[in-house]
Amino acid sequence: MRITFLGTGAAGGVPLFGCQCSACVIAHNSPDYGREPCSALIESGGIRILIDGGLMDLHKRFGPGELDAILLTHFHPDHVQGLFHLRWGKGPTIPVFIPPDPDGCADLFRHPGMLEFRPQVAFSAFQVGPLKITPLPLIHSKITFGYAIELADGPAFAYLTDTRGLPLETGDFLRAMKPDGLAIDCSFPPSDEPKGHNDWTMALDCIEAVSPVRTWLTHISHELDDWRLSTNPDLPADIRVARDGEQASLAPAAGKHPHE
Amino acid sequence: MRITFLGTGAAGGVPLFGCQCSACVIAHNSPDYGREPCSALIESGGIRILIDGGLMDLHKRFGPGELDAILLTHFHPDHVQGLFHLRWGKGPTIPVFIPPDPDGCADLFRHPGMLEFRPQVAFSAFQVGPLKITPLPLIHSKITFGYAIELADGPAFAYLTDTRGLPLETGDFLRAMKPDGLAIDCSFPPSDEPKGHNDWTMALDCIEAVSPVRTWLTHISHELDDWRLSTNPDLPADIRVARDGEQASLAPAAGKHPHE
Ligand SMILES: [Mn+2]
Ligand SMILES: [Mn+2]
Ligand SMILES: [Mn+2]
Ligand SMILES: [Mn+2]
Ligand SMILES: [Zn+2]
Ligand SMILES: [Zn+2]
Repeated sequence: MRITFLGTGAAGGVPLFGCQCSACVIAHNSPDYGREPCSALIESGGIRILIDGGLMDLHKRFGPGELDAILLTHFHPDHVQGLFHLRWGKGPTIPVFIPPDPDGCADLFRHPGMLEFRPQVAFSAFQVGPLKITPLPLIHSKITFGYAIELADGPAFAYLTDTRGLPLETGDFLRAMKPDGLAIDCSFPPSDEPKGHNDWTMALDCIEAVSPVRTWLTHISHELDDWRLSTNPDLPADIRVARDGEQASLAPAAGKHPHE
Repeated sequence: MRITFLGTGAAGGVPLFGCQCSACVIAHNSPDYGREPCSALIESGGIRILIDGGLMDLHKRFGPGELDAILLTHFHPDHVQGLFHLRWGKGPTIPVFIPPDPDGCADLFRHPGMLEFRPQVAFSAFQVGPLKITPLPLIHSKITFGYAIELADGPAFAYLTDTRGLPLETGDFLRAMKPDGLAIDCSFPPSDEPKGHNDWTMALDCIEAVSPVRTWLTHISHELDDWRLSTNPDLPADIRVARDGEQASLAPAAGKHPHE
């Protein structure tokens, strides 16, 4: 299973319009340090799944038939805004798995174009090709699902944005799943009262509770990048701050599957 | 007064995701022929006004303080989607002049960030620096304003998207104004029943009724480009199909202002 972090930014991205903080100045001068809207591509056995549709050039990145499914975490604009364009395209219908949010975003439900929205039920797994996908409730200002993505006899990956902490049941599910890889919202530096998202401390607490083999922090704000530049905080070797375009290949942890 | 056609595309743009028509293939291979979301920049005497916010990289194209105002024609996503990002920026508040649409788009009104939305009244002019701007009702599926932009003793420009024909009063206003330049919705090739937008025939009818000195057709779909490729239709010398990035300097027509 290959994961590509297509975008790793919080709403507003990095550089943020008009911001002169160190992180934004660096990202302005070196686009490699920029952060586009948070999203990821999962590839496994010829299947390609896009998680979230906030990237603004989806209609240019992918050709017809290249996306087997889209998983939406929630309907905030930074996670769906690229679909406004994509939907008018031609080619096979793309199934879009979503949380049961009756509002959607703007006129997406009224004019779905080539997208086929399929509301899901928490903890009720569905299949895309060989991949078993389970929607996991998160804690956010709009109804939001993270997704556990598992390959039979293969690795298990969980993608958890946007969230501030984890619901008890979601934590229990993930602990039982023993993820080989985890991507989790880490929007802010340590903060007294983070709003709607994990700060650094909460993200590390979630990771400790779930005990994944490897973790990527994502949905990164310019404030987090700026704080990291000035404080250079330690991270365990198995946790990375994801960067746009970063790829990872996941294999199941040794000994996880007894018949291997 | 300088006009830059930043984007000249209909919703979905050119190339359209997954489309293999001649126009889309050409635009795919030669990005110069691509069409981004319909929008324009008006510059005059140090003032910069953006018409519509559908471009997806506004936060990268403009620096803080570089936009004195934004005029929104209406709240369809292809005209506002770039604001989802821009709003979270830093710097002076940007006034955004809008039609009195109570819904806006998605959560823009709830979370305006650095944008200050200012609903306008049809035919009631307002001033941005030296420019007198008059909202002109158009005919579309959402409440929509075109804008007449006039410089005292200088040129007059009118920007009319999205529309299917022109309301009587708007036509009267424009005839009286005698625009030096006009940009108008021409989404489709000649069609039996164009939906929500001018087709080629209706756009030419509108232009004839208004009698501007020069006209640019905009909000162009891949179907229109494809039809033009196959039929090579004639256009009078004073009417052009706008292209992304095209610039024009407008001067008042000779003899229009008696004291010049
Ligand atoms: Mn978000
Ligand atoms: Mn969110
Ligand atoms: Mn439009
Ligand atoms: Mn429209
Ligand atoms: Zn910054
Ligand atoms: Zn086409």
